[in-house]
Amino acid sequence: MSAPIGRQGRRPTIKAVAAAAGVSTAAVSQAFHGKGRLSEPTRQRILDAAGELGWSPSAPAAALRNARTRTLALVVRRPTDVLGADPHFSELITGIEGELAPRGYGLLLHLVAGAQEENALYRQLTAEGRVDGAVLTDARTNDPRPALLARLGLPAVLLGPPDRAGGVPSVGLGHQGAAVEEVVRHLLGLGHRRIAYVAGPADLQHTRLRGGVFETALKAAGLRPYAVLHTDFTEVSAVAATRALLEAPDRATAIVYANDSMAVCGIGAAQRDGLRVPDDLSVVGYDNLPLGRWLHPRLTTVDQQVQRVGAAAARLLLARCGEDVEETVLDDRPRLVVRESTGPAPASPVSPVSPVSPG
Amino acid sequence: MSAPIGRQGRRPTIKAVAAAAGVSTAAVSQAFHGKGRLSEPTRQRILDAAGELGWSPSAPAAALRNARTRTLALVVRRPTDVLGADPHFSELITGIEGELAPRGYGLLLHLVAGAQEENALYRQLTAEGRVDGAVLTDARTNDPRPALLARLGLPAVLLGPPDRAGGVPSVGLGHQGAAVEEVVRHLLGLGHRRIAYVAGPADLQHTRLRGGVFETALKAAGLRPYAVLHTDFTEVSAVAATRALLEAPDRATAIVYANDSMAVCGIGAAQRDGLRVPDDLSVVGYDNLPLGRWLHPRLTTVDQQVQRVGAAAARLLLARCGEDVEETVLDDRPRLVVRESTGPAPASPVSPVSPVSPG
Repeated sequence: MSAPIGRQGRRPTIKAVAAAAGVSTAAVSQAFHGKGRLSEPTRQRILDAAGELGWSPSAPAAALRNARTRTLALVVRRPTDVLGADPHFSELITGIEGELAPRGYGLLLHLVAGAQEENALYRQLTAEGRVDGAVLTDARTNDPRPALLARLGLPAVLLGPPDRAGGVPSVGLGHQGAAVEEVVRHLLGLGHRRIAYVAGPADLQHTRLRGGVFETALKAAGLRPYAVLHTDFTEVSAVAATRALLEAPDRATAIVYANDSMAVCGIGAAQRDGLRVPDDLSVVGYDNLPLGRWLHPRLTTVDQQVQRVGAAAARLLLARCGEDVEETVLDDRPRLVVRESTGPAPASPVSPVSPVSPG
Repeated sequence: MSAPIGRQGRRPTIKAVAAAAGVSTAAVSQAFHGKGRLSEPTRQRILDAAGELGWSPSAPAAALRNARTRTLALVVRRPTDVLGADPHFSELITGIEGELAPRGYGLLLHLVAGAQEENALYRQLTAEGRVDGAVLTDARTNDPRPALLARLGLPAVLLGPPDRAGGVPSVGLGHQGAAVEEVVRHLLGLGHRRIAYVAGPADLQHTRLRGGVFETALKAAGLRPYAVLHTDFTEVSAVAATRALLEAPDRATAIVYANDSMAVCGIGAAQRDGLRVPDDLSVVGYDNLPLGRWLHPRLTTVDQQVQRVGAAAARLLLARCGEDVEETVLDDRPRLVVRESTGPAPASPVSPVSPVSPG
């Protein structure tokens, strides 16, 4: 990866910004404080230079007050049809909006097809001064976005397990792995031995993390996954994966899905094939969307607190944009919510069940 | 309602804009065409004056090309929790984004609590030149928004039955009433006589329209509604309404819900009370969200083509903003999609069923 010359290992200075924009350091200060008699093009040139060099005033709260757009960006890289079908995103947006709305902020939503388009968009939004900050979704392996946004000088937060990636703080519940372990223990405790995992795309960080924990937790009980199938989160792929897991004579007796939407599709597919949930098949989701409470049987799932995480991300980003907002400490972890879609493993002549006590 | 002096009955002129902004008419033209040597504050003052007077150049496509923000506003007036729970909005946003994303447009989403806040927001977004246009949701009786936006000079479309309200074109499927009639005929044809309607808030236009058609269609068959219950679209109110309809000995045998989310809550509540759908209770939704296909039984519902309507609204608005986009003609109407959640009315000793043929 390349970075602008002169930036690596050195904090950019107000002098460098002034030189790049061809103005005095006083003018740079004025541009950020909205004072003085700068023309709009000059002010914009200064802000662009600062953004390009990754410089911002040392007291952002005071400095940015007059440069604000009161708009935060949320760029989602998903096929359009998945955005519509997956309530996860309206939950997330709801959590964010719950913090933005009372403060008069708007959320600028952009849908992009790929990484290049997403990165180009951040450059454009920054260049045009169109947003105060950005919420990044779907943390990826070797994610180039934190470094890009730091370089652009655009405040950002990354939705994902709490750590620091390239200067952009992450917001999310920690110990996702512990929740997956909890799911596996719950199913083992119910006597399940043939447990499958219907995951998301292989390049998503959380997919790899949870898939790994799933396998490790089973291994600790001397088992292997019945299967781990990757999907693109669509209904079609969730139903196809479910069918594949249920058609063998020694079929899976429990399926863990990477999100609630796919779990609901899976329950429907199983019931349509004449299987009872949870008598013949136990199903576990992940998200704890409202949807899971509407159904009968109610969905056993992992509470990701999507709205709360969205709200916490918004609060942190607002604080980074200079708003007087206290950060929310997310000291909880995702937790299993046992409802009605999981039950004792069915007896099976092909592979007799030997119940295992919860670990 | 008040309107700025001098606007009623007279088309605003470029001279009036020039006078209001204290510039020449040539400068007004330059401001819209992005040419000349106008300072940014002057250009903004001219655009503000034009917006306030409701003036725009006669060839908007060419004129606005250089004044664009490539952002459209979507202001939603809903309690935060309903936005999160109701996939209707992610469907709508998906439809809009499907047209915006390929053109590099973003959607600025604002959540507001009430009418005053919504109207103030349009004024602010216009004054700050932050959006090119707005999609208005939830057409209301005596809706003041079309007149406001016309006054502000902000291009807009209203989601609702096709007609013209105060100069703002509506985008939606026509003949919503015909779909409700179709629902009633379908249920009468299955022998149902005790048919209830679980509606949305009484002040929404579509709630009143559909409720009226529901009653009229039953009346034509010599029946009255079993009950019409209003809700705030939440899960709690949907479940409470369902329980109320099912607790009487001569309970409703069919319930029509104002949206799919509430219908799914209703099915869950009924099944939890030991009723089978559709054997004991038929359920009809409204929206045709993906969710309805995931379930078993699959939901009988009215296809509102939410995504398609969102896309059509976006296309019309893009065209009004000067983009070279052909309008989509929505010549269809909402149609009943019969799936598995409706069936023959159960025999009942309290009120014997006399089947009625479909009209």
